[in-house]
Amino acid sequence: MAIPAEMKALLQTNDGYAAKPSGSVLEAMEPYVEPGVVAVPKPKPTQLLIKVSLASINPSDVMFVKGMYGQPRQKGQPAGFEGVGTVVATGDEPLARSFADKRVAFATGVTGWGSWAEYAVAEAPACIALIDTVRDEDGAAMIVNPLTALAMFGIVKDEGEKAFIVTAGASQLCKLIIALAKEEGFRPIAIVRRDDQIPLLKELGAAHVLNSEAADFRTSLKETVKAEQPRIFLDAMTGPLAAGIFHVMPKRSRWIIYGRLDPSTTPILEPGQLIFQQKVIEGFWLPVWMRQSPERREWAEMEAQKRFSDGRWTTDVTAVVPLSKAMSETPAALAKPNGKVFIKPD
Amino acid sequence: MAIPAEMKALLQTNDGYAAKPSGSVLEAMEPYVEPGVVAVPKPKPTQLLIKVSLASINPSDVMFVKGMYGQPRQKGQPAGFEGVGTVVATGDEPLARSFADKRVAFATGVTGWGSWAEYAVAEAPACIALIDTVRDEDGAAMIVNPLTALAMFGIVKDEGEKAFIVTAGASQLCKLIIALAKEEGFRPIAIVRRDDQIPLLKELGAAHVLNSEAADFRTSLKETVKAEQPRIFLDAMTGPLAAGIFHVMPKRSRWIIYGRLDPSTTPILEPGQLIFQQKVIEGFWLPVWMRQSPERREWAEMEAQKRFSDGRWTTDVTAVVPLSKAMSETPAALAKPNGKVFIKPD
Repeated sequence: MAIPAEMKALLQTNDGYAAKPSGSVLEAMEPYVEPGVVAVPKPKPTQLLIKVSLASINPSDVMFVKGMYGQPRQKGQPAGFEGVGTVVATGDEPLARSFADKRVAFATGVTGWGSWAEYAVAEAPACIALIDTVRDEDGAAMIVNPLTALAMFGIVKDEGEKAFIVTAGASQLCKLIIALAKEEGFRPIAIVRRDDQIPLLKELGAAHVLNSEAADFRTSLKETVKAEQPRIFLDAMTGPLAAGIFHVMPKRSRWIIYGRLDPSTTPILEPGQLIFQQKVIEGFWLPVWMRQSPERREWAEMEAQKRFSDGRWTTDVTAVVPLSKAMSETPAALAKPNGKVFIKPD
Repeated sequence: MAIPAEMKALLQTNDGYAAKPSGSVLEAMEPYVEPGVVAVPKPKPTQLLIKVSLASINPSDVMFVKGMYGQPRQKGQPAGFEGVGTVVATGDEPLARSFADKRVAFATGVTGWGSWAEYAVAEAPACIALIDTVRDEDGAAMIVNPLTALAMFGIVKDEGEKAFIVTAGASQLCKLIIALAKEEGFRPIAIVRRDDQIPLLKELGAAHVLNSEAADFRTSLKETVKAEQPRIFLDAMTGPLAAGIFHVMPKRSRWIIYGRLDPSTTPILEPGQLIFQQKVIEGFWLPVWMRQSPERREWAEMEAQKRFSDGRWTTDVTAVVPLSKAMSETPAALAKPNGKVFIKPD
């Protein structure tokens, strides 16, 4: 495939981190990215150059471009952590070369060449060669959510208790986790912020869905925790809400933080619980999980593809926005609930 | 040995927890304990009744009687977590019976019958039969500090990095840890609150001693952390100081909380560090450590006794206060720096 010298991309307009946190909603694209034309990069020895078919927009992308994610922004570089596409050039290392010409799901990580562009760069270990039965929409959203869901539900299974708690319960990620849990007889307790999210999550398999904005939230949380004894808390929020949930959980509970949707201060309400109740506060990050065990990683990659191929999983698509219109159309598309927004190079 | 029907003791005058935290200094005994006479208790099947020779006063005792420790107070019950004495009655279970008539170091845990009394009750697994070469002063302070020091330095050794950080660096416990670390070529970074504590700790083996009250503390902390790359943080304080120390520590650092000397709020300054840097916040509690591995526990019990017997360790005694004078003499004795205060039944 002929590779052009230049490409269109949505380029970051800021460096580093935001001076002030600003919430998790993308109110507009202009403060954070701008359309531009840059030279198509060359992959390093361990990397792949990918012609992007479809790029996804995850909550972590929004947090990143707003400067509130745990990685620094790079002005002038394309944004976008995830996508699907075709490998058009590879580095010289064997793993990278093994991906030549393949259709891959990819995560751009810290390469600096994101997926909101005609071409992206990913490290070979952050790519999955896709089987033909996986649609582009599913491949473009294969890594961040599905693999994280399999990984985090794996933590729940290893812990052994049937019940566990998730915040941001109506997210795509949590829906995947809840469905996995239902299949295996586990009892997810989902925390949401709107009553209209409750029926869908119950249908998917949540044992309890609690609205944190409800007047009786504290009481129902305590009763639910007492009845279900959840020990794993998969938390996308942090802040006082998450701290309060962890506080009422039983002995040996693990607060596993994977997102930072609430930028306000996160207190440890009673550090004595860490001492006398062996509670632990830790984090989850997919790249670390993937590095820890190649076997587990291969299993998860194949499991996700099987589930998308046979229809057990499917990505709800809210909108596919052309790259040329992404500046104007993305914020409104993201504001719609319950589905995923993609950017497609045109 | 004839066991009397009644005994003198310092009895707790409060139940449960303090409504408001009040600092870690014992300004007076009267608000928290009162002298009294109560029936000598009978040990349960797993317990020992011990005639107290010497009871120690640890920072955790002060926090406990003030209602700021992670266990509820029990009005009318004797205070005191630790001591040395002779077993005068045992429960029927084999482990308990094996301690009959022995001189033991003991921790009263949650039996409700503390060591600030003529007789105390301890669970058999919380007792150590002492070899003759261990002095009473060392036996009475054998468990809480020496075993904790061996256990926590063991965590440092398992982690592998030579440097580690301790708060409350001038405590008896930290002095033991620092001396252990020096023997094995480790590099403790001790945080203290007074300049006059610096020379002693350096002599004991601290690689760095930083005064958290100094104007340049933040700068020297950052420089020290950068140079030494400590990954273990053994923290007796919590609160903003501890949170700030953890914040500047490198990837994969573990904040291990074992005390709560600062009752103010403990924030997680950047939860993203738990995600992207695999930092972890956990607790340490000796009874849990002792349950986890009987072999390790036996090793630590013998190691502590050897060190006290051959003089490598010695307990600095500030005062031995008679039980009959403990109400009036204890606060002033505790206010003296650098040594331990004991209560002796008279």
